[in-house]
This record gives sequence, structure tokens and C-alpha cells, in this order.
Amino acid sequence: MSRAPVDASEHFDTASFDLDGDTLREECGIFGIFGHPDASAIVALGLHALQHRGQEAAGIVSFDGKVFHSERRPGLVGDSFSDGATIERLKGRSAIGHVRYSTTGGTILRNVQPLFAELAGGGLAVAHNGNLTNALSIRRDLVRDGAITQSTSDTEVILHLAARSRKPRIIERFIDALQAIQGAYALVALTNKKLIGARDPLGIRPLVLGELDGCYMLASETCALDIIGARYVRDIENGEIVVISEEGVESIRFANAQPMRPCIFEYIYFARPDSVVNGKSVYAVRKAIGHELARESRAEADVVVPVPDSGVPAALGYAQETGIPFEMGIIRNHYVGRTFIQPTQSVRELGVRMKHSANRAAIAGKRIVLVDDSLVRGTTSVKIVRMMREAGAAEVHFRIASPPITHPDYYGIDTPEREKLLAATHDLEGMRQYIGADSLAFLSIPGLYRAMGETERRSACPQYTDHCFTGEYPTGLTDLSIASPRQMAMLAEAD
Amino acid sequence: MSRAPVDASEHFDTASFDLDGDTLREECGIFGIFGHPDASAIVALGLHALQHRGQEAAGIVSFDGKVFHSERRPGLVGDSFSDGATIERLKGRSAIGHVRYSTTGGTILRNVQPLFAELAGGGLAVAHNGNLTNALSIRRDLVRDGAITQSTSDTEVILHLAARSRKPRIIERFIDALQAIQGAYALVALTNKKLIGARDPLGIRPLVLGELDGCYMLASETCALDIIGARYVRDIENGEIVVISEEGVESIRFANAQPMRPCIFEYIYFARPDSVVNGKSVYAVRKAIGHELARESRAEADVVVPVPDSGVPAALGYAQETGIPFEMGIIRNHYVGRTFIQPTQSVRELGVRMKHSANRAAIAGKRIVLVDDSLVRGTTSVKIVRMMREAGAAEVHFRIASPPITHPDYYGIDTPEREKLLAATHDLEGMRQYIGADSLAFLSIPGLYRAMGETERRSACPQYTDHCFTGEYPTGLTDLSIASPRQMAMLAEAD
Amino acid sequence: MSRAPVDASEHFDTASFDLDGDTLREECGIFGIFGHPDASAIVALGLHALQHRGQEAAGIVSFDGKVFHSERRPGLVGDSFSDGATIERLKGRSAIGHVRYSTTGGTILRNVQPLFAELAGGGLAVAHNGNLTNALSIRRDLVRDGAITQSTSDTEVILHLAARSRKPRIIERFIDALQAIQGAYALVALTNKKLIGARDPLGIRPLVLGELDGCYMLASETCALDIIGARYVRDIENGEIVVISEEGVESIRFANAQPMRPCIFEYIYFARPDSVVNGKSVYAVRKAIGHELARESRAEADVVVPVPDSGVPAALGYAQETGIPFEMGIIRNHYVGRTFIQPTQSVRELGVRMKHSANRAAIAGKRIVLVDDSLVRGTTSVKIVRMMREAGAAEVHFRIASPPITHPDYYGIDTPEREKLLAATHDLEGMRQYIGADSLAFLSIPGLYRAMGETERRSACPQYTDHCFTGEYPTGLTDLSIASPRQMAMLAEAD
Amino acid sequence: MSRAPVDASEHFDTASFDLDGDTLREECGIFGIFGHPDASAIVALGLHALQHRGQEAAGIVSFDGKVFHSERRPGLVGDSFSDGATIERLKGRSAIGHVRYSTTGGTILRNVQPLFAELAGGGLAVAHNGNLTNALSIRRDLVRDGAITQSTSDTEVILHLAARSRKPRIIERFIDALQAIQGAYALVALTNKKLIGARDPLGIRPLVLGELDGCYMLASETCALDIIGARYVRDIENGEIVVISEEGVESIRFANAQPMRPCIFEYIYFARPDSVVNGKSVYAVRKAIGHELARESRAEADVVVPVPDSGVPAALGYAQETGIPFEMGIIRNHYVGRTFIQPTQSVRELGVRMKHSANRAAIAGKRIVLVDDSLVRGTTSVKIVRMMREAGAAEVHFRIASPPITHPDYYGIDTPEREKLLAATHDLEGMRQYIGADSLAFLSIPGLYRAMGETERRSACPQYTDHCFTGEYPTGLTDLSIASPRQMAMLAEAD
Repeated sequence: MSRAPVDASEHFDTASFDLDGDTLREECGIFGIFGHPDASAIVALGLHALQHRGQEAAGIVSFDGKVFHSERRPGLVGDSFSDGATIERLKGRSAIGHVRYSTTGGTILRNVQPLFAELAGGGLAVAHNGNLTNALSIRRDLVRDGAITQSTSDTEVILHLAARSRKPRIIERFIDALQAIQGAYALVALTNKKLIGARDPLGIRPLVLGELDGCYMLASETCALDIIGARYVRDIENGEIVVISEEGVESIRFANAQPMRPCIFEYIYFARPDSVVNGKSVYAVRKAIGHELARESRAEADVVVPVPDSGVPAALGYAQETGIPFEMGIIRNHYVGRTFIQPTQSVRELGVRMKHSANRAAIAGKRIVLVDDSLVRGTTSVKIVRMMREAGAAEVHFRIASPPITHPDYYGIDTPEREKLLAATHDLEGMRQYIGADSLAFLSIPGLYRAMGETERRSACPQYTDHCFTGEYPTGLTDLSIASPRQMAMLAEAD
Repeated sequence: MSRAPVDASEHFDTASFDLDGDTLREECGIFGIFGHPDASAIVALGLHALQHRGQEAAGIVSFDGKVFHSERRPGLVGDSFSDGATIERLKGRSAIGHVRYSTTGGTILRNVQPLFAELAGGGLAVAHNGNLTNALSIRRDLVRDGAITQSTSDTEVILHLAARSRKPRIIERFIDALQAIQGAYALVALTNKKLIGARDPLGIRPLVLGELDGCYMLASETCALDIIGARYVRDIENGEIVVISEEGVESIRFANAQPMRPCIFEYIYFARPDSVVNGKSVYAVRKAIGHELARESRAEADVVVPVPDSGVPAALGYAQETGIPFEMGIIRNHYVGRTFIQPTQSVRELGVRMKHSANRAAIAGKRIVLVDDSLVRGTTSVKIVRMMREAGAAEVHFRIASPPITHPDYYGIDTPEREKLLAATHDLEGMRQYIGADSLAFLSIPGLYRAMGETERRSACPQYTDHCFTGEYPTGLTDLSIASPRQMAMLAEAD
Repeated sequence: MSRAPVDASEHFDTASFDLDGDTLREECGIFGIFGHPDASAIVALGLHALQHRGQEAAGIVSFDGKVFHSERRPGLVGDSFSDGATIERLKGRSAIGHVRYSTTGGTILRNVQPLFAELAGGGLAVAHNGNLTNALSIRRDLVRDGAITQSTSDTEVILHLAARSRKPRIIERFIDALQAIQGAYALVALTNKKLIGARDPLGIRPLVLGELDGCYMLASETCALDIIGARYVRDIENGEIVVISEEGVESIRFANAQPMRPCIFEYIYFARPDSVVNGKSVYAVRKAIGHELARESRAEADVVVPVPDSGVPAALGYAQETGIPFEMGIIRNHYVGRTFIQPTQSVRELGVRMKHSANRAAIAGKRIVLVDDSLVRGTTSVKIVRMMREAGAAEVHFRIASPPITHPDYYGIDTPEREKLLAATHDLEGMRQYIGADSLAFLSIPGLYRAMGETERRSACPQYTDHCFTGEYPTGLTDLSIASPRQMAMLAEAD
Repeated sequence: MSRAPVDASEHFDTASFDLDGDTLREECGIFGIFGHPDASAIVALGLHALQHRGQEAAGIVSFDGKVFHSERRPGLVGDSFSDGATIERLKGRSAIGHVRYSTTGGTILRNVQPLFAELAGGGLAVAHNGNLTNALSIRRDLVRDGAITQSTSDTEVILHLAARSRKPRIIERFIDALQAIQGAYALVALTNKKLIGARDPLGIRPLVLGELDGCYMLASETCALDIIGARYVRDIENGEIVVISEEGVESIRFANAQPMRPCIFEYIYFARPDSVVNGKSVYAVRKAIGHELARESRAEADVVVPVPDSGVPAALGYAQETGIPFEMGIIRNHYVGRTFIQPTQSVRELGVRMKHSANRAAIAGKRIVLVDDSLVRGTTSVKIVRMMREAGAAEVHFRIASPPITHPDYYGIDTPEREKLLAATHDLEGMRQYIGADSLAFLSIPGLYRAMGETERRSACPQYTDHCFTGEYPTGLTDLSIASPRQMAMLAEAD
């Protein structure tokens, strides 16, 4: 008998299948490759490069010409998919993979992607980054109609829709499914003949096409191409399906032409700085944001200090624009794991110190400009400001490299409910007092669009998905009509 | 992030979903209880008593009034379900459980029962002992119709059939499902209101009703009632559904009345000797078999030696009938785990010695009657006879406490393909020579029925399912028409 | 037994190193082989056959001509030492191994044997079955003299004594160590040239020499020779060292000649029935005990029922002597694992039912003679008697196949403190009332010696170590003078 | 790092105990606290802050007034020592801990520190950072004298020396041990009354005293005080023992007064930038090094790019001194785990890309100054230079923020054998060609001392241990006389 500790504690919450649900959807990264002798090893490397998009779990499905193989594991790609035995089991020349965001609370292995279903015409595996805004509505209809759902993931409805399509070819069934769903999605899918990539009609979530020695691949970001030395070919377009097979790359439009409207948060926070998203360097955008921020909100100060690592490029831009020296006044501990037991006495601000520590030598007696990428709840900012003062900072001028976040996301970024967003409930002075800085400034929305290289935000048809700053959601939010306020917050989680 | 090694190596074999499949079905034990404050702890105890029916994996699903909880694990109940934390997670006053047979090759956790589905009217969990003979046919139709199947278990088709029923109440949907399936099954099912038990129209697999302090329970064998001190109420009848709820026990007939025809192998080998199956003591039947065997095939010998443990009661009967002394001439090692590495040199008959050893003091220089419960492939018997001779037995007279097995089972007992059954390819003298005994005799079919308390086998309508000895299968075998010879063998595995 | 991945949570109790200690010593089995190409695989098989002597942990040390390899694991041999990778790591043509008894409370991996030390002349690995009665005294002197002890095992003092010997050759150092210790021991030891076996001056614990294809081996019992088809050569004598090397087997006497006095408990309970200990079949002795018991204490009854499995041979003897039919009135569950969670309501006598169940068909309405091997605390006997009555037994006559245990063991058998031994605090009628039997009888001491083939017990110089029945301890008990009463009980644990 | 449940596969290599050994000694971090109610939780936090000093394994020993408790685990502190259950087991108000460097090859749990021994006067636990240069010699003598060594760690000789001291008090025994050893060490030790700290006669390895709410603690670096908000009191002096007890802090000099000579590598590479070592800010020293390097070896370039993270401060200094813009031209992947399977085709420079990726936007078309902390074998530098060129760098000017490393370390830093040090076998131009840079320059030794705030290196009595650059070893290297050339390289590993 096998004694391998296979856990799989599974809790079926009947309510959760309907409208509620603790961990319905989270943020993710995806990768796929077609026709390479080391397909699974390359997917593992690609996922490793995309690890910043999700650390909770990872999965790979491969196809060896006859059989699909699947391995899905909690934890990091480097821990679960780096050994020869695992990769060896994932036989075949085509494979797709997925990394999933770390959320608190229950992970269940059945939700780890790629998901797989046996359709009448053959197997279909799907990995999804994004979030559907009508998944609960569709799921309700599917269950009414006799479908058995096995995960709590919104991605599963895509499989059911494809299974129930009456079209003969799997690619047609897949398109039927896409035309029924609403929201944000980048998808990679694997059949017994093809690798498929798809991006939602607005191109909210990113997806790029790459090539290595004649083999094509799909990835959430270009950094996943770079790690294996692959060539960036192009971004998948909004509303486009690419079908990669022995015949090469075929492009299909499944949605009416409309301007692209990618998520601006990829540039501000989410993508890796060395990635090029929709043709723009993330690092360059972040530095440009720093320059804009410096022009809008200069501070009299001695040093510019980033909150590492995401605040570094904007802080560099800020320092270069102002001429104030850039210093690593906060050191990041790279070994942050689980939450430690809190001593009952004497230790203050432990949470923030697990991840960041003040570099006294760089800040004691100085007036500092502290640059962070964004301000969400503000609870960490309070602690960082206090840590700076305890380390001897004479003044702390806080600069945020994005506009105030006033609305939750429903497209794949895990944001808190609206009432917990500091900028939704406080004005600027209120926020300054809350976090305890000597001054506080955010980047303006026009400044953000200038940093993106635009002259201005086209209000009729914005160039980017920016609802977190503006409240202008780019798609319908069907599930909101059947979900309670608490459930609305849940919708902000994503695949 | 959780670093618990959660396995889930999953291999999707597209072919296997259709007709083939390595581990489609196996032998099992089931238990369920309704309305007890310690429901899950009691299910764990019941499954422990049923552990001889399946050692590969175990699972329990409970319902706490709002939410279904599920834990499914490889290995023994005593290893996986004896700790407080696991039982604590399985909240609720109603629960069902399942133990699964140990087969070689790939277990996949998704196949471990009870299976669960969210239907339009609420959740439904099902645990199954038996095997369906039209599951592949139904599965093929379901996939054609857009269903997504997640396990390779035939039990899953019951869930899909119930999900697709257009009846409003879950119990009606469940009956719809039962009326579509063919084969052998004892089922326990749990809804958010009821505990359900069902037995196939011939009552091939066993199921009993018990009671403890006013709470009703269902179990494969009475030994699972005894462990918790519960009272045996009655056997579930063939073609009967019992519905246990706050209102008590309701009985529904879902199949036309026909005589019961339980599997005779439960008495010969499968059930525990202290169980009472269909009103007959298994121990008493086995002893009666020994008496019949002695009357039919007396041997001139000094001692009667059982192959432990299953041969012990028949050997006792044989010894009492003949007056030849009973001796424990073979000692069983209770610590048999995995297969050991075989030394490359010098060690003979290692396999059999891992489990059995000759007790030289009891057999050296003696003429022995060796009594075993059955003869399947004969490979072990060869080794045991040789081990007896090496330990000094003067003569070895082999007596088999059942008739020759000439046909495979398709109802839940894992038998090899027909060509590997020794009795299907050899006559009695050929078998004797093959196993190397001085004499060999089987119980006759009339003798078997006499031991069961019958005067004779009713050939038009046999009292027991005995196709392994007679080739008379009691139900249709629909899947055989769509399965290859190799797949036919697979059908012999069961839940 | 614990299956948790053992990492070695280690708790150093300073007091425990001196005189106290929770888990200082337990019961064990040992095996060693010299010069075989599959040395480690054979040791694993030998330990598997000795698994009944210890289920808590197992270890093997091998020598490959240059380097010693060691693997020590909690749990069963069949779980930890059956895989190819583990055996592959244990390279070499010589190896020794050890299984350790399961005690409640803390196992620490450092205590799992064989222990190893690097001496000035080379490495020395030792595995020990037995218990030293002056280990605490020696340990105290060693620590005073600057030795650092790493385990809480009494076996470690043997290594220290050998390390501190001024003799040049390891075998001489080993003899120096043996001459300093007191108590019961069978030892196998491995150096870079030799396999060594030793038995204490009275031969209390067993050790046999076997041979397979010209390779010699040592084992606690002959059943470990049988599993690999090896030939029994002879028992190691009391006070003898055997040194096995390329030159063959050399015998050395390290203690003055005195009559052997082996532990009689090996026959009554400890050894496997198919083993031959000191030239006597364990099974034959147990049956003879049954005959003696029947002659001494016949009961008017309908059936003889053994408490399985250890009571079976004596019950057979009893049945044969009296002519009362032998029946398996109690069925043993072979899948007993950890202790289950006890339901808070309704379930009685759960502990005993986890392991044993009444076979109602064999006992209802009958007057039964219940035969068990021994009576220690009596707590289980109470429950078994009650279970028999609840299953309908008309009368229960309890027969114990050994004399009353009135004194604790200090030589390797885990017995409770004296005040917890039922026979030390109750007279026969008191015991009968306590366990609730209709009659109770023990084997007499003369009867026991007759069953051993002796005409009588030589009171001046008893043929067997039988202090548990007589209080006559065969060796000094030095540590008792430095240990408190509670610590005295601890001394009853052993390697 | 391995996350496998470590059970302690142990391989005893007899040769290795004498002179050889694969993993005898490595680099480490230590922490201890006395008299705090949350002692173990605080040690865990301190070790977490010191995690950069060792990622292979961690251990904590606590004392609860009666018993020592120990937990030692492979992997990160945040994975092994952050849960409540583990900390709960480490009871007591005093505790010490240790993190150990990750080396390739065999970790054995017995080597994980703190080590513990029961001495005649009570228990003694020791944790060690550094390396002894006469440990093999002492170990040889100890084994000759009958000592049994259990680990392959040089730290164990300290325990043996203390155990064998004839002094009555443990502190005196500990001093006896220190006076016998040679090399580099910072030690924390725990007895049943005291917390002890010690630093070798030259103060090669660092150790500081801190205080929190009246409780004293010892740590390798000040960053471990900062994480818990403790106050830095002072550095332990060279040749000083501090004894912390209920009576406060007592200081004892165990070595003759001589000038301190701390290891200069702590500043260059090893310590965390926010630590203050021997009174100097590591970050400030590294920036000063950048300034010196810029003055000595200016390059005509467009951007200054650090090799992250250790090259960042020097690169900032270089950029500030020259006015050339600082850019994050290399992005570090924070999720580097185990080594991935290398695809057999097409993927180049995979190793370096697992950890670093080129940020094309910052370097394409630019002349870059690449700043790294040191150059050891040069193999990674080759790949980074090539990666820069492939990302479009026009010119690559490599600047090393330390002098050429020409000699191995024997004091606790894991350096390769001399012949593998690039600077030991190549001249400057040879090195430039090897790594493929357009220009290459190292910091000069005078420049290094200027950056340390000295006017010059005192050649008669250097202010720092700098043998890696100069070949001037500050202590005797006794073991070298008994070790082979290959063994000499082993000596470079450390605790």
C-alpha cells in the first residue's frame, strides 16, 4: 500500500458552489509550448520565470501523442517541478503549465490548474490567468442542467461549455465557450493535436507568442521567453485565438474588433520589470512614472529610498529627475516564508520586519523621500514610516507611484473590498495622517498616462483598464447581480 | 504556502476513459450512519472492521447540516482516519465511508470514494461496493452528451445519471440512476437530508442495516456493527432502497421482485469469519465446507494443516469430521508490507516466505492434509507444497474448500483473465502435477450447496451467484460487447 | 507505530542521563551476515522475520570494504527497508541489523540501533537485544570521566567501554567491554574485518548461527534463517563470542563456564512459534504447556477458544488433551494501527474490539475454555471475558498458559512495575473475580518445567531464567542501588 | 535546499573521521538569549534575520530550568521554526540557535547545530560560526584516547575538550577547551545556568551583544537585533568570553591581549548591508568601496549596473562618484530553489538565468559598467557578461569591488581550492579575456583599506584578516600538516 502522504483534505461547501466561496479565483501565470522534445522541462522553466505571478501552487499537463499526463502540486515550481522524475513523468512534445497566486485559506488541489476534461472529440487541458465575471451565473445554469462540477474554479465552466457545445471540432467548441464567457482571460489550452492561446476581447490580461528553434510557445510575460533564450514574436491580440500545430501558427478572431484595453496594473505592480508587456518595457514605464511623480510632487529631501523591490525603478526615476541621491535605505529579507509565531512580549512591528529592515546608515538624520508602487490598505505603509523614523529619519515624504486605488478589481488581481481600500475612505490629508508621513503624494491619472507614453487618457475609450483608479469597469459584471456584497469582494479573486 | 507533500500525480489516459483503463474498478467495503454525534468516528471504526475488503485507500464524507466535508487517503483506515484532527474536520451527524481494494499499479486519489457531486437540488455523496457491467457504455454516451468525467471509476456514472435526471427530488434522481445501471452493487449515499442504502436487483453484494442507540447505520458486513456494539437489524433486500432520515427508515423497491442471488464467494473467501451474511454465519459455512470436503475427499494423513488465515475454519471442519489432529503447520507473518528487494542469489521461494513459514515441529515426518480456501492461478500453491516438503512433510494432500474456478468475475472481485485460471486450462490430474501434491481434491458444487444448507443447486434459478464455478452470469454484460479481450479482464476489477 | 517523518525532535533530559529516563531500554531482534553479495537485502529479510520482536524502528549498518553505511528508520522493516534505493545505499558484503520494540512515548532516532563508533583501530557497529543491569552505573562513571554520550540507550556504554579499552585489537576491546557489563544481552557487531556475535554468561537472550551457501549469519531466532532458506548450525553458547571472518568461524569464551539459563519467556510468549530456541520447538513447548494445563486444570466445557494468535498452540494442546473441540471463537483483526479516536457516546469496550472480535457462531450458548498465554495487568482479560459473555457464552473458564507473573523483568522484556502486576497483588480467587471468569487457573511452575521436558526445576541452579514467576533474578542488579522505585520500573525496559 | 523529510540516512566514512571528509565545516550564523519568556520564538526570529549566513539547516536548543529541548531541521528557519507547535516544544527562558550554510553534497542531521553534551556538571549546548584549524589533530588524539565522536563537525571537539577538562565548573571547562583550539570562532553556548558567548583571540568571526527589556542576547550581526527591536550594546571583543546569567553580564579574557583582526570579507560580501560589524556600517563600507573603485578605475560608460543584490551598494557608490547613471540592468529572480532539469536542447546559459535576467530596456545599446562584489572562479561572470552582450550592451566594463582572491580561506568561508581561484592562475589581462569583458579592474588592497577608513594597511600587524587577498594567514594551520592537498581544500569549509 502506498504510504506517500497524499493529503487532499477536501471540503465541499454547498453554498460556495452557488454564489459564495472562499477561494474561487486568484491571480496566475501561464505558459505553453508545442512540438519540443523537452516540452515539460521548458514549461517548468517558463513557470519558474513567472513565479512572481503565483506562489501557491503549480501544475503542468503534457501530451505524449497518446496520453495526457498531469502533475499538480502546492508550492513553488523550483521545489515541485525541478526534479528529473517529475519531468520524466510529464512525457510528450507539447505541454502547458500554470502558477497560482498565494491566498490565505484553503487551497484545494482540485483547483490547481491546468484543468482537464475528456470531451467527445478528445482531451482538453486549460490554464487560465484572469477572472470571469459571469462564471457564477453560468455555473448555476450548468448545475441545473445536470453538469457535475468538480472544482470551485471559474475556469471549469470553460471546460463544461466546450464539452456541451454541439460543434464537431474541439477548436470550434472552445470558441463556443469563449463566446459565452465575460471578463478577463488569457488562456493556454492543449488538445491531442494543438496548442491554443486566447486573450479576452479587450486584452486585459497579457499573453505573448515566442519561438525557440522553430517551436512556438505562449507565455504571460516575455521574461518567461528570456529564461530559455526564446525569441519574442508578438503579443496575442485582444479577441484573438492562436492555434499552434504541426502546420504552424493560425490566427482566428473570435470577437468583434474593438480597441485593446490592457490592465494598467501589470505595469505598475504586477509584471516583472524586465518584461515587455504590450510592447512597452515595464522597467521603462516604472522609471517614467518616477520622473512624472518627481515633476508633480517634488520633496525637499536628502535621499530617495525605495520600498524594495517593486518601488526601485520609480525611485530611481524620481532620484534622477530630482538629483536627490538614491539610497537603499530599506533592506529586503529574501527568506520570507510562513508567518512566524509572534512573541507575546516586547517585539514591535514584527510583521514588517520579517520582510524589510531599515538601513540606519543610509537614513539616520536624513530627510527621506520614500517611494512605493501603490497604496492599498495602508497598514504596511504605517509600519514602514514608523520604522524609518525609529531608524533616525529626520523627515519622511511618502510618494506613491500610482494614483489612489478607490475600486476593487474583478479581473484577476486580488484586491480587498472597497471599504478596506484606504483611498476609498480617506482624503489625501487623512491618508497622510493615517500613515504618519510628513507629506504624501500620489501620481495623478494624467501623469500615469503620460508615463505610459500617451498625451492623455481618452475618456470615451480609455487606452487601459484602469477601473481601480477610476471606477470605470470595461466589461459587464453579471455575477454581481446574483452575489451579495461580501460575495462581490470574493469576485475580486482570480485565476 | 503549504509545503505538505500533496501528491496527485495524475495521468489522464484518453483511451482509458473510453474502453480500456488500468484501474477502473476494484473490490470494496462501505459504511454509513445517520444522526449520531460521533458520526465520522463511528464510520472510521466501521471501515476499520471492513479493512479486509480493501486496503488501498479509504475515504469519509460527512454532512454537518450546511456543508459536506470529505477526506480521502491512500493506505489503511487505522493510519489515516484514527487521529483526532482528521475526524474533527469531518464534522456532522451523518457520514458515509469507503475502503478500496489494493491493486498493483496506479491508484489515483480522484478515484478514492465516496465520490461527491453538487446537483441542482443539493449535494450527493456515493460509496459503492460492486461493479457495473454497463458503465463503459453509459460513460461513452455521457461524454458524447457533454458530460465531463473526473474519475475513472464506474461509480461516477451513477452521479452523472442522477445529475441529469429531470426528477425534482434527489431520491427520485437516484432511483432513475439505479434503473439505468446493470451489474452488482451495494451503495450508501448521503444527501443534505438523508442516508440512503441500495442493493442491486439480485442482491449480489452484501449490505446490512444496524442500529445503535436509536441511530441507524448501513454496513457491508455485520462485523462492522459488532466493533461498535451496534445491533444487527436486517439485511437490505435485493432491489431495495432504504432511506434513513429524521423520520426513520423508509423502504422503496426500485426493481421487480425476483429471487435473491447473493455472491457465494463472500462465504468462501471474502467476508470476515465472524460476520453473518444474508443470515448465515460465515464461520459456520466454512466449517460445514470442511466437513463436506472431508466426506467427499478423505485423505490418509497424520495432521490437518490450514493455509492461514482463510483456510482455518474449513481445516477445523475437516479435522473434526475425520478425527485427524489439527495443527498450525504454517505460521503467518503479520507484518507483510511492500514487496522486498529480492536478493540476486541463494534465496528461494522468497515471495511465499514473506507471508508464510513452515512450522517444522508440526509437520516433519508427517503425512499432511493441506486445506486452502480456493485455487486461482495456483502459483502460490506450488510454493506452499514445496515449502511443506522442504520442512519434512512425508506426504502432502491438498484439499480446496471450494469448487474449481473456471470463469472470471465481473461483479466486484478481482479475478485474473480466464486463461490464467488454473482450473480453466488443466484437468484435476494436471493441476495436481502442477502444484506437486500427492493428491488434490476440490469441494464439489453439490457439496458447496449442501454446506450452504441447501439440498441442491436449483439449476433453473440458482440460489447464489456462482458463475466463477459454473459460468452462469446472473446479469447482462453489456460492456463486453464494446471491450477488447484485454479490456474484458479489466472488467473483473470492481469498486 | 508512528509514521510521521521523523526528523528528530530531540529532548535532552539532563536528569534522565543519570538515573531516570523515559525510554531507556526496550525489547529487540538482531541479525547479521558476513560475506554475502546481497548482505543488506538479506538482513532486511531477516529483520522482517524478526519483526514480532520490535515494531517501533529498524536499522541496518553495512560495510563495503572501505566505508560503513547506515540507515535507521521508524516503523516496520517492510515499509522502510524493502525498496531498492535504500538497500542500494547499504553497500557491502557484511551487514548487521536491529528491530526495536514499540513503546509508548518518545522514540528518538538517535536511539535506533545499530549504534556506531569510530574507534582508534577502526569502526564498530553494535546491535543489542537484552538489557544491562549496570548501564546507569557505568554511564555515570563515563560521564564523570569526560565521555560524551549521544543516545539514551544502554547499548552505547558498550561502545564507550570498547573505545576506552587500551587493548590494540578491536576484538580484545570488545571483550573488555563485555567483561565490564552485567545483565542480559545477545549482540551482533560489525567491524571493518569481522562479524561478531556474543551472548551473555547465562545465555538469557537467544542467538543462533546459520549458514547459506557458505556464508555465516547470526539471528535472534531460527525463523529468520528459514525466511531465506538458510541452514541452522547451532545456538551461540552462553558466555561465548563467535568471530566470523574470511577465515571462518572462531569461538572465544569470555566468561567462566556456568550452566546456561535462558529466559523461559521466549517459549511462553516472545519467540515465533515456528522458531527453535535453544534446541526446542517453541510450538511444541506451547502445545505441551496446553497439555500440562489440561491435566492440571481441566474444565467442564463445550469448546476450547484461544485468544489469538499467541494462545493458539496451548489451546490446541488443551483441546487435544481433553477432547473438547477447538474453535476460533475470537477473530483477530490484522489491521490494527494506531489508537482510534474514541466516540464520546455509546461505544463500549472499543479498545479490545479494535484487535479482537467475538465469533458468535462458535460460542453462543456454549461453555468455553478461554486459553491465553499469560496474565499481566489483567485489564484486557476483563474485556475479553465480557465480550465472550455478550456474544452468548454460557460459561467462561479462563486458563493461563504460564504461572502467575509476580515480579518485573530487567533483562529485555517490557513489564510493568510490580504493583501493577495482577498476580503480585491478588490471590487466585481475587484475580478470578477481577476478570469476571467462572473459573481461573494458571499453569504451575512444575507444570511449566515438565512442558519444557524437565522432570523438575532445579532450585539450586534453575535451568531457566524465570524470575518473573519466582523472583529469583539470575544476575546482579547494580543499577537498582542507584535508582529510585520509579526508576526501577524503567529498568524493565530493554534493547 | 532539500525539503525531503530528513530521516537521516547516515553514511559513516571511516577515512573521513581521520583526515578527509566531504562536509566537515561550513559557514554559519548564531544567536542566543537569556531569561526571556519567549526565548525560542525570539531565537527563531534572530535566526531568520541571519538566514543569509546559512540556508542548509537550522537548530535551536532551549533550557526550561530542568530539561534541555532541541529541534534541528534541514531547510529554512521560516519553514521549520515558524509554527507554534515547534516553538512550544522548545520550552524555557533561555535558548541558542544556529543556521548552517548550504553546501552541495551530504547534509547529515547529526551535524546540524547546536550540538549538545551531558557533562559531569550538567548539560552544555554549543553553536559555532567559524572554523578550527587544529580540529582534525585534536579529533585524532581524542579518538586515540577512547572518545566516541558522533558528528563530522569540528565543533564537536569543543564539547569533548570541555567534557575531559578536570575543572569543576562548566565555565572553566569551556575555557580549557577554548585554550586548546586554534582558528576562527564565534560561539554561543547554553548551560543550565548561563548563556555564554565567545570570540576567538583575533575576533575573526563577528559576535555582538544586544539587549531587549533587560534581557541580554548574542548574535552574529546587528540585523538580528533589529528584527526584534533590540538595542545594540557592543561587540564581543577578541579573546573575550561573556557569561550572561541572572547576575547580569560578566566578561572574562581567556586569551592574551593582542590587536583585533576581524575578517574583512564580512564587509565585502558576507554580512547583511544593514548590519553594523565591529562598529562599521556594512552598507557604508560597500558604498565607500564603490567610490574608491571609481577613483581607481573609472570607465567611459553610459550606465552603472550592479550584479544584484550584493553588488548594489558598491555600484551606487561607483555611480555617485562618477556621475554615471545607476540602472537595474540585471533583475534577480527571488524564487531560486533547487537546480532544474536542464533541457537537452536549445537552452543556453540556463544556470545564470535561473537567478538573474538581463533587463534589456536598461542596457540595450549602452556602454555599461558592471559591478560585482568579488570574483572567485569566474564561471558566473563569464555568463553574466555574455548575457549582457546578448541583451544588447555596447560595451561591458567589469569592476570588482574587492581585490583579487588568490588564497583559500580556512576560517569559515567556503572557498574553492587555490587552483580553482581565477586570480590565482591568471593575470589581469588573462582574467579579462576569460570573462570576455571590454575592460576589467579590481579594487586595490590600499583602496580596500581606505574604504575601511584606514590610511593604509599595517603590514606588520594588519588591521583585518585578509589572507584571501594577501596569503597572510593570521593563525597557525595545524591540520594542514596532517592533511593531503585535497583535504586542505576541505579545510576551507566551516561552521
